[in-house]
Amino acid sequence: MREVYVIGAGMHPFGRYPDKELPDLAGPAVQAALADAGLTWRQVQMTYCGHVRGGTTAAQTALAPLGYTGAPVINCENACAAGSTAFYLAALAVGAGQCDVALVLGMEKMTRGMVPTAAGGDMARLMGLNPLPGKYAMIARRYMHDHGCSAADFAMVSVKSHGNGVHNPYAQYRHACTVEEVLASRQVCDPLTLLQCCPTSDGAAAVVLAARRPALASPQRPLVRVRATVLVSQFHVPGDPFDVSEMTARAAQQAYATASCGPEDLDAVELHDCFTSAEVIHVESLGLCAHGEGTRLAATGRNGRGGRVAVSPSGGLLSRGHPLGATGVAQVAELVWQLRGQAGGRQVEGARLGLTHTVGGGGGGACAVHILERAGSARGR
Amino acid sequence: MREVYVIGAGMHPFGRYPDKELPDLAGPAVQAALADAGLTWRQVQMTYCGHVRGGTTAAQTALAPLGYTGAPVINCENACAAGSTAFYLAALAVGAGQCDVALVLGMEKMTRGMVPTAAGGDMARLMGLNPLPGKYAMIARRYMHDHGCSAADFAMVSVKSHGNGVHNPYAQYRHACTVEEVLASRQVCDPLTLLQCCPTSDGAAAVVLAARRPALASPQRPLVRVRATVLVSQFHVPGDPFDVSEMTARAAQQAYATASCGPEDLDAVELHDCFTSAEVIHVESLGLCAHGEGTRLAATGRNGRGGRVAVSPSGGLLSRGHPLGATGVAQVAELVWQLRGQAGGRQVEGARLGLTHTVGGGGGGACAVHILERAGSARGR
Repeated sequence: MREVYVIGAGMHPFGRYPDKELPDLAGPAVQAALADAGLTWRQVQMTYCGHVRGGTTAAQTALAPLGYTGAPVINCENACAAGSTAFYLAALAVGAGQCDVALVLGMEKMTRGMVPTAAGGDMARLMGLNPLPGKYAMIARRYMHDHGCSAADFAMVSVKSHGNGVHNPYAQYRHACTVEEVLASRQVCDPLTLLQCCPTSDGAAAVVLAARRPALASPQRPLVRVRATVLVSQFHVPGDPFDVSEMTARAAQQAYATASCGPEDLDAVELHDCFTSAEVIHVESLGLCAHGEGTRLAATGRNGRGGRVAVSPSGGLLSRGHPLGATGVAQVAELVWQLRGQAGGRQVEGARLGLTHTVGGGGGGACAVHILERAGSARGR
Repeated sequence: MREVYVIGAGMHPFGRYPDKELPDLAGPAVQAALADAGLTWRQVQMTYCGHVRGGTTAAQTALAPLGYTGAPVINCENACAAGSTAFYLAALAVGAGQCDVALVLGMEKMTRGMVPTAAGGDMARLMGLNPLPGKYAMIARRYMHDHGCSAADFAMVSVKSHGNGVHNPYAQYRHACTVEEVLASRQVCDPLTLLQCCPTSDGAAAVVLAARRPALASPQRPLVRVRATVLVSQFHVPGDPFDVSEMTARAAQQAYATASCGPEDLDAVELHDCFTSAEVIHVESLGLCAHGEGTRLAATGRNGRGGRVAVSPSGGLLSRGHPLGATGVAQVAELVWQLRGQAGGRQVEGARLGLTHTVGGGGGGACAVHILERAGSARGR
């Protein structure tokens, strides 16, 4: 496999855009990513697009205003991991030499109200386990029981992430909040309050992958290289309890092995914090802290921008927003900016190695983990 | 790139199954393909699934009854080329060494009535150009004007394909028909009558790709090798007339170049005959006859099972049916059986080289062409 570089990143700010359609969201993101890469749309040899609710050949329709270049376009879907799956496919195509320049687009225009999902099956739905807030509230309750922490400990995750989002011009919500405000916000599913749940969002993000070092690379603009890209689904033995951490832990282990690094080498992590309780279990599954210490990471500031590893420096799904298919690509874009030192007020100083993580879907579902590196770094080798 | 073999094929018969859901359709197809390959579900390292209307992580849900093995599953969508796109991705993954065994699943459960599509945009819809029968009726009318042929010439395509479908146990319609019956069937969109339009279908098809020659290979069961797999979208210069043959012609040229063969080397072709007029323009774009001779292929029997090249020996979309995402995979399954000499009453004698072709989608759309070969054949080199 050849080395794969991320040479461009762009986003349409996440938010609610009742007057915009997918081409209005995707177009600016793609054009920003291409401009950042110093390329034109005609130089893109393949496009991989992640979305969940865009409909038939939504990527082709969204990209039509840019012109019909003849290059193949592939729509892929894996629920909340759709954008990450598109990145996974594109990295393979570039790495394998199928193309030299690939565009990865993630986009979503969400409806108002609850998001119907395939997760859990009919019995679970009848029991109120679907939609997802119920699932993650139960995870929080069980975690509180097992590890003796409080609702306020979960709220700290939201405080940390919203504090980061303040500095992200692409974030849907750019306001800091206190633990008291988080706990006092509207109850969604006890113990999860509104500020502990990701919002309903529209948005798009795009990155450009290439096999060659771009001409734009310079000491002021370091290269970002893909060190690992992993996709898994759930492993489960019938009759055993369903382990909500299994996919994440296994995908992370595979990614660390591929990249010859460990969680201790990471500077920045963009993970799937769809709820505060999700972040707590994911930081543990990714190996960023010991089992049972997930809430303490936020409480002690160890996952802040000045801590040992910055978790969701973008503001994460909680603050940046979560337009399903766009999220995985936005995570990569954020890491590109962090690793280049272009993240402005939310910059993680000296960031050299970063990881993205998404999970999604019913049945066996999907979990994707990517590791990106500021090229030239000797760290994590 | 490594050689890629198709070592297993299976289908759930196409038809209308109001009492079956996607797992009921996909399961038997997958189990038949695995049994044919001599493998178990746990030996599948990656799954690529093409579907259009299955909903979120539909493949994971459909495969859940087989068990959660942890192997990644990717849902991909490209309208009527969804299954072919899944095959394209899987062939790359196996060829590039990302995995040794990949499953390709295509499945669809369609609603009753017209199929809404993204093709053509709002103005085209207002003008009645959508749904698709309108488009292909206009193509037929123009063809009749340009080449001086009659509605009966198009009807001959349907006669040929339904004649093949009689012998296909997986076909939705297994009855032969005459030109008179085709022309007398209900008018859908002048000059296209009901028997010139593919039906609304449910169904699933699966094939197994592998990098190694399977143990099951024998003189009685020859190997089937992937010689080329190509995916393109539309090329179009603004202001120029939109060329409905552009994608197919370019994809075919790329595939012939990759496989070092030409249309004259093909024994069997499964193409996207969603309407009789579609087959007529596609046989020309694929180079199976000269421009303007498309209707004559059927009229002279040159595209029958005993002719120069068998077109849609399975019965094609017209007779086998067209469950959108399943079609591209069913085409590959049919070629596997043809190239192995296992196609029963519809066998194309001595078939050694075959091609599949699908088109789909709005905007830039998608067109996929695959070329498969009975390994050991010196033909077409």
